[in-house]
Amino acid sequence: MVGLGRMGANLVRRLMRDGHRCVVYDRSTDAIRSLTDEGATGAGSLSDFVAKLEKPRAVWLMLPAAVVDSTLDELAGLLDAGDTVIDGGNSYYRDDITRAKRLQERNIHYVDCGTSGGVWGLERGYCLMIGGETEVVQRLDPIFKTIAPGQGSAEPTPSRTRTDGTAPDGYLHCGPSGAGHFVKMVHNGVEYGMMAAIAEGLSIIKHANAGTVDRTVDAETTPLRDPWAYQYTIDVAEVAEVWRRGSVIGSWLVDLTADALARSPELDEFTGRVSDSGEGRWTVLAAVDEGVPASVITTALFERFESRQLGGFTDRVMSAMRSEFGGHAEKK
Amino acid sequence: MVGLGRMGANLVRRLMRDGHRCVVYDRSTDAIRSLTDEGATGAGSLSDFVAKLEKPRAVWLMLPAAVVDSTLDELAGLLDAGDTVIDGGNSYYRDDITRAKRLQERNIHYVDCGTSGGVWGLERGYCLMIGGETEVVQRLDPIFKTIAPGQGSAEPTPSRTRTDGTAPDGYLHCGPSGAGHFVKMVHNGVEYGMMAAIAEGLSIIKHANAGTVDRTVDAETTPLRDPWAYQYTIDVAEVAEVWRRGSVIGSWLVDLTADALARSPELDEFTGRVSDSGEGRWTVLAAVDEGVPASVITTALFERFESRQLGGFTDRVMSAMRSEFGGHAEKK
Amino acid sequence: MVGLGRMGANLVRRLMRDGHRCVVYDRSTDAIRSLTDEGATGAGSLSDFVAKLEKPRAVWLMLPAAVVDSTLDELAGLLDAGDTVIDGGNSYYRDDITRAKRLQERNIHYVDCGTSGGVWGLERGYCLMIGGETEVVQRLDPIFKTIAPGQGSAEPTPSRTRTDGTAPDGYLHCGPSGAGHFVKMVHNGVEYGMMAAIAEGLSIIKHANAGTVDRTVDAETTPLRDPWAYQYTIDVAEVAEVWRRGSVIGSWLVDLTADALARSPELDEFTGRVSDSGEGRWTVLAAVDEGVPASVITTALFERFESRQLGGFTDRVMSAMRSEFGGHAEKK
Amino acid sequence: MVGLGRMGANLVRRLMRDGHRCVVYDRSTDAIRSLTDEGATGAGSLSDFVAKLEKPRAVWLMLPAAVVDSTLDELAGLLDAGDTVIDGGNSYYRDDITRAKRLQERNIHYVDCGTSGGVWGLERGYCLMIGGETEVVQRLDPIFKTIAPGQGSAEPTPSRTRTDGTAPDGYLHCGPSGAGHFVKMVHNGVEYGMMAAIAEGLSIIKHANAGTVDRTVDAETTPLRDPWAYQYTIDVAEVAEVWRRGSVIGSWLVDLTADALARSPELDEFTGRVSDSGEGRWTVLAAVDEGVPASVITTALFERFESRQLGGFTDRVMSAMRSEFGGHAEKK
Repeated sequence: MVGLGRMGANLVRRLMRDGHRCVVYDRSTDAIRSLTDEGATGAGSLSDFVAKLEKPRAVWLMLPAAVVDSTLDELAGLLDAGDTVIDGGNSYYRDDITRAKRLQERNIHYVDCGTSGGVWGLERGYCLMIGGETEVVQRLDPIFKTIAPGQGSAEPTPSRTRTDGTAPDGYLHCGPSGAGHFVKMVHNGVEYGMMAAIAEGLSIIKHANAGTVDRTVDAETTPLRDPWAYQYTIDVAEVAEVWRRGSVIGSWLVDLTADALARSPELDEFTGRVSDSGEGRWTVLAAVDEGVPASVITTALFERFESRQLGGFTDRVMSAMRSEFGGHAEKK
Repeated sequence: MVGLGRMGANLVRRLMRDGHRCVVYDRSTDAIRSLTDEGATGAGSLSDFVAKLEKPRAVWLMLPAAVVDSTLDELAGLLDAGDTVIDGGNSYYRDDITRAKRLQERNIHYVDCGTSGGVWGLERGYCLMIGGETEVVQRLDPIFKTIAPGQGSAEPTPSRTRTDGTAPDGYLHCGPSGAGHFVKMVHNGVEYGMMAAIAEGLSIIKHANAGTVDRTVDAETTPLRDPWAYQYTIDVAEVAEVWRRGSVIGSWLVDLTADALARSPELDEFTGRVSDSGEGRWTVLAAVDEGVPASVITTALFERFESRQLGGFTDRVMSAMRSEFGGHAEKK
Repeated sequence: MVGLGRMGANLVRRLMRDGHRCVVYDRSTDAIRSLTDEGATGAGSLSDFVAKLEKPRAVWLMLPAAVVDSTLDELAGLLDAGDTVIDGGNSYYRDDITRAKRLQERNIHYVDCGTSGGVWGLERGYCLMIGGETEVVQRLDPIFKTIAPGQGSAEPTPSRTRTDGTAPDGYLHCGPSGAGHFVKMVHNGVEYGMMAAIAEGLSIIKHANAGTVDRTVDAETTPLRDPWAYQYTIDVAEVAEVWRRGSVIGSWLVDLTADALARSPELDEFTGRVSDSGEGRWTVLAAVDEGVPASVITTALFERFESRQLGGFTDRVMSAMRSEFGGHAEKK
Repeated sequence: MVGLGRMGANLVRRLMRDGHRCVVYDRSTDAIRSLTDEGATGAGSLSDFVAKLEKPRAVWLMLPAAVVDSTLDELAGLLDAGDTVIDGGNSYYRDDITRAKRLQERNIHYVDCGTSGGVWGLERGYCLMIGGETEVVQRLDPIFKTIAPGQGSAEPTPSRTRTDGTAPDGYLHCGPSGAGHFVKMVHNGVEYGMMAAIAEGLSIIKHANAGTVDRTVDAETTPLRDPWAYQYTIDVAEVAEVWRRGSVIGSWLVDLTADALARSPELDEFTGRVSDSGEGRWTVLAAVDEGVPASVITTALFERFESRQLGGFTDRVMSAMRSEFGGHAEKK
């Protein structure tokens, strides 16, 4: 394992718990030490790391996207034909295609592995979406099986009749190079959409008291025609809690939302600036290229942009037009 | 129980399993008979139904929205002060406010109860979102407790410290009249958004083979610039299956999607005309009234409209403009 | 004319220029005086106003939506059978239907007249969208003809073969009560969409320098993959100016945008808080009721909501989820 | 001029009318002949074409995007240092950057020129958005000035104080290579948004009779709560006509819509399959890369996708979910 951040370290722990032997490397010696204390073999450098692995080697990278390529370049000079590099981070799937080709020239294999599970994966297991050559992926099967949640983590799908395949274990070989990160990318796009749907819904419920709040009365403010219909003060945290059981929208995201609201009903510790780290954007680009209308996922992406006030010039142009044609002054 | 359709009948079964005695009525004698066979008390008419209930009566209506008001009118003449009517269907929450007022004149109580769980509720239990007077809702607690899924149906929310409240059992008194259906309405809006996000994502994955498909080459068709990046043929059913375990988007809707795709990978038995039955529309109306931007939920609603080709005139106007300014003929 | 704000006063001026005699009333005596100085007949009270009009009277209201009903109530007691009230403001069309019925009981006619043209209408004329009884609207034709821009204000529509109808003059009897404000309401919805499209486009052009700007490098920030493709510093004001001539998007809104940008290229005097005054919301409600997918108009409305940061709780819920599942801290 | 389709031929005509001498080439000899009949010099081949031009040559390409590169390759071998190629078609701006570099190696200049005006440009003039080296663009100024609409085509912008610049003539040097097509690309994105806004609005007006139409009464159909509010049968063609004068949304697109509706009020000759030819997609990609929320433009793009039923699999997945959780059968 190269890269011992939260995700990398927990992957190592989950592997060791199941009896795998792991060599670990990171630029931080503290990160290394905390895992060697738990039984891992530490390495002092990338070449030391490579030397300590048995052939054919399997090197799992869990690195920020920005340093994957430089690490790969260095590794390429250290590894031997037949070795495999697994990129478990959030790379753009197109980079996987390029990298696999480049490493193939040295007969080094490259596997891309989208890894979902967040900070909870150590206990729950990680959902793995894998791309690469079939034989190579099969050889690594024991690793993936350990990391994934396993069949017991959910009821079997009633209509599933095929008995082959690893999807019920929580990992899937999706196709050739890039296919794993492609599916993971779209997974995150779906995540954006689901998060926004839940958040919007809770917001509508929170504002069900709109009729009890004084509205400014002026030409720039739409009056609420039916204040009697918005007289509710609803406990949003309890709504999230009740939706966890038996409802159609039951989901891990609702579970987590209930947890966050249980701790902090107003979520005042957040400013609401929602980052996006690439996969949502790439999902939209793919949808546009493919000609697939992905209105909800795209809307969720732009909602994040708006949360960071990236539409400022757009808004000022609109205010300027209103001023021009109607003499409307902006409200303060 | 008045109304013994799929939902009504299963509610009765779930109640009887837990020892409640139920009187049942429906316009269909077959529907009544099948439940009396299972131990319910049948009624031959609405007045017979009322006569067979012990006071203070609790009458649960599980009827199509269109016939609730006429049934309520008839019931109002039969019930006594102190009785309660529960509307468990999908009424518009504003109707609840009106109805509760009307019944209150006769000292009859009215409780609105949004019921989520679909055809699976008999086994899983139903998530209940309840509106009405506190004392009345409390008196009916044993009924709600039986119908709801119960605490065992999900892990406790770690950060939840309060020990009162019924939300962990899967039912919640949300507020005065209409509050239950308000929360249920928004629940369905969230459902629309989540469904659309999942469906769009799977569609983007299905079309990851866009680079392998011949595109028409003409001025009206955007060429795909990077066909090499869309060469994947991904098993969408297996993707849905793998997302069920350990992923951030794990949810009951993904479970159901995996089930449907396991049976029918192309879903050819569907035409893709997606109905909407009101709650999504009402959620949008509420968001607009409240001034809450609900972009994702609204987009999901309009996606359903588009699936039924309701935008036909809009589209023809756009084609007409393109013909006017550019001489563009429509593609067949 | 009752109500001598910007719009009301200019309507009077436009009417007087064309030889109409006008009685004017407003709560502000200054507003009255400035028009009597220009030749109008002033009134000291609403009853004085009514007394000074010849029968059958035509009373044009140009009032904030909030005071229309109280003024109508007062007027109803002063007017005689056969008189007509015209509401030229931005009333909700459903109110027109109610008001017309109420006045009809006294044989007073009610005409709703959507008036578009903003502060420029005095010179350009106003586009009028009219609802009410056919005979009444026809009787008022000389008034509408004067206020509207007239045929000379645009080239004739080449394919228009019908020679009847007033639409080429810039005013149209759209149908019975409410039809005028209905069409005006949708007009404003279209306006929202067009404004947003122009503003977004100019914003994309302004940010064509994205590749020249330093981006934070961290896991929460999507890197720009092709900075070489975003190296443009484009003069947005000149782009708006060039789009005014010969382009497909040539429009009055582009004209006005060019004017605003010519004065202030950065539009720094605006904060970008874009108000909405009701018509956009009502357009969305109508689309939802009708089952017409109005994605663009609705998106434009929500973009205005976002410009006023109305999505704050939604955004905080999303941040909270990201913190829960991924340990992501918000960026400052 | 290479490429004598509708646009290319009309550009030649407009140039000749103003005294420019033009050499023309096309693969179709008919296309050549019809212009030589009007005074142009015809060429039998690309080399003949180049031979007939005076140095420094200015070669304007008006070709489908798919053949621009091959034509450029051939031209590169025929032209001399100091010559200029102008691409007036709808190329992707990134291709301009690549092409300009390639030609620069031979000291051949490359100018990209986005051309808006459609089939009306011969009379109205074309709006030109130009990218390339400043000196080269200035040398070609007489050509651009002739093609553009000129200052008389619109009233001057009141607040514009600068007296330099060609934007008021309807052409603009936007920046280095690609800047012209970048601005044209966004122009088309804006066009998509404006078209959709107008079309949606007219559709909402057309369906203002929703309350007069029988709706199916079943659980899958949302009832219309207020049929009394949707009793209007409004003449959509006349609405488009009246919006042409004095309204805030007055625009060339409204003019054209009025024309189309005057000919064919139902637009039955169109099926509503709205093509998109690339610029809209590229605008969305740019917005996503820049991090600019372009919700309205993107929504308009996806609306076109939906008009061509590209969301079929998405919709079937949603129908499958509804069937799974609720037993809902699709409506026929």
